Amino acid sequence: MNKNFSTSYRIYYEDTDASGVVYYANYLKFFERARTDFLRACGISQFTLAQTQSIIFMVRKCQIEYKNSARLDDLIEIKTTVKKFGGASIVMLQEMFRKDDAKLLNILEVEIACVNSKLMKPAKIPEAIKSAFTNEFNG
Amino acid sequence: MNKNFSTSYRIYYEDTDASGVVYYANYLKFFERARTDFLRACGISQFTLAQTQSIIFMVRKCQIEYKNSARLDDLIEIKTTVKKFGGASIVMLQEMFRKDDAKLLNILEVEIACVNSKLMKPAKIPEAIKSAFTNEFNG
Amino acid sequence: MNKNFSTSYRIYYEDTDASGVVYYANYLKFFERARTDFLRACGISQFTLAQTQSIIFMVRKCQIEYKNSARLDDLIEIKTTVKKFGGASIVMLQEMFRKDDAKLLNILEVEIACVNSKLMKPAKIPEAIKSAFTNEFNG
Amino acid sequence: MNKNFSTSYRIYYEDTDASGVVYYANYLKFFERARTDFLRACGISQFTLAQTQSIIFMVRKCQIEYKNSARLDDLIEIKTTVKKFGGASIVMLQEMFRKDDAKLLNILEVEIACVNSKLMKPAKIPEAIKSAFTNEFNG
Repeated sequence: MNKNFSTSYRIYYEDTDASGVVYYANYLKFFERARTDFLRACGISQFTLAQTQSIIFMVRKCQIEYKNSARLDDLIEIKTTVKKFGGASIVMLQEMFRKDDAKLLNILEVEIACVNSKLMKPAKIPEAIKSAFTNEFNG
Repeated sequence: MNKNFSTSYRIYYEDTDASGVVYYANYLKFFERARTDFLRACGISQFTLAQTQSIIFMVRKCQIEYKNSARLDDLIEIKTTVKKFGGASIVMLQEMFRKDDAKLLNILEVEIACVNSKLMKPAKIPEAIKSAFTNEFNG
Repeated sequence: MNKNFSTSYRIYYEDTDASGVVYYANYLKFFERARTDFLRACGISQFTLAQTQSIIFMVRKCQIEYKNSARLDDLIEIKTTVKKFGGASIVMLQEMFRKDDAKLLNILEVEIACVNSKLMKPAKIPEAIKSAFTNEFNG
Repeated sequence: MNKNFSTSYRIYYEDTDASGVVYYANYLKFFERARTDFLRACGISQFTLAQTQSIIFMVRKCQIEYKNSARLDDLIEIKTTVKKFGGASIVMLQEMFRKDDAKLLNILEVEIACVNSKLMKPAKIPEAIKSAFTNEFNG
C-alpha cells in the first residue's frame, strides 16, 4: 500500500478569497475530491455503498499544514497514500502540489471512520474495499 | 402580503473571491438564508416540514441583477417580499442592500415550487403556511 | 459564433446539500468554470488580463431555470454559446446536462460586462478576445 | 488571556451536504467567522489592517477533531481562546457546541501567522492588537 494515487484539479474563482489566493477551508474540498476519486479508481462508489450497505465514511480528524498558497488558474496535483488501515478506520496522507513549479502547498493527515449510517456506529471496513485498495496500490 | 421581511448578514472571507468582492454565486446563499429566516419567523421549520409531511421547496427560476458588489466586513440587509402566492408555487422578490450606505446591491426574483419529496411531484402549499404568511405579513 | 463549447465536471459532496442533490447556488459555480475554460480554450487568461490590462469581467444578470437536479457522483456536461457580442458586454447561453442519460438539468442566460478594474467603468472588449472567440468558434 | 470569546451562528442548507449534516470543510468557515468576530470585538478590522499596514493573518496549521455533526437549522456556539501569543504568531483553541443540547461538536487548534503582505514575510504582531486582546480578555 505504499504506491500513491495522483489526481489533478484546477483552481477557479470560487476557490479563492479576497486575499487573492485559495481560502483555507477550500483546500479540504480538493483533498476530499482526491479521496473520492481514489475510491472510484478502486471501483468503489460511495453513493452505492451508502445505498446498499448503509456504509459511510466520516472524517474524524484532520491535521493540515499550510506551506504555500494555491492561486487562481493554478493546476494542482494531489498525491494520496494510505498510511494505516485499521479495522474500522483509515489514515490517509495527502500532499498537494502546484503542477507548474512542483511546489508543495499543503499536507493533510486525515483519519476516516467507517460508519453504519443506520446505527451511527463504527462498522468494519468491507473486505471488498480492503482488497480493492490492496490490489490497486500494491505491486 | 405587501409588508416586507428584513434580515441582516455579515460578509466574511469565505464569501469573497480573488476579485476582492463577494463571488457572484454566493449572493444566492444570503438570499436563501433570508427565505429560511422568513419561514422561521412565520413559525415554519423546513426540516420538520420535510420530515413530517415530505414537503420540500425547490427553486425553479432565478432572475438576478447585480448592481453593486458587497465587500469583506460589509453588513448587508435583505428585504424579502412575497410577490405571488400560487397553488403550488411562490414568487418572491428579494433586494440586498449595504447597511452602511443603504446602497442597493442585488435584486432577485425567485420562483419556488412546493414539492412532495416522495413522489417528486408538485404539491399544494399547506394551508398552515399560507395563513402563517398572510397573518405575519398583512396588516 | 454558433458553435458551442463543451466541458465536463464531476459532482462531489461539497456541491450537494441536505436535500440530497446539488445546492441551487452551486450550479452557478460550474457555469463559471465552463466560461473560464471557454476563455482558456481561446487562449485568454483572466488572471493575465487583470494584471496587464486591468480588464475584468463582471456578471451583470443571470437568468437560470432549474429543470432537473444533479446528484452526487454525476458527471455533468456544460455547453456554452455566445448569444450576443456587444461593445462592452457579452451574453452567453449555457446548458447543463447529465452525461449519463443526457438529461437537461439547467439553463443559464448570463450577461457579462467588460470592466476596467482601476476606473470601475465599462471597458471595450479587447480586439484580441473578440477575434479569439470568433476564430475558435466559427467555421 | 484565559477568558473566552463566544459567538453563535445558524446552520443553513448551504453548509450541509448529501450525507444530511454539515460538510466537513465548512466547519472551518464557522471557526474563521468566530476569529474575525473576535478581532472585531477587540476593535480590529482585518480589512483596515491590510489596507493601512499591509498586515494579514495566514493560517499555518489546523488540527481539527470531529466529535458530533451539526445539522440543518442548528444554532451553534463557538468559544475561542488564545492559547499562545508569540511574536509573529498566535495559537487559538476553538470549540463548537450545539446550543440546543450543549453537545460538543468539534475542536480546532489553529496556528496563525502575522504576515507582511507586500514582502510576504513574517511580521511582528502590532502592539495595538496585542494590548487589545489583553485588555478585552483579561480581568
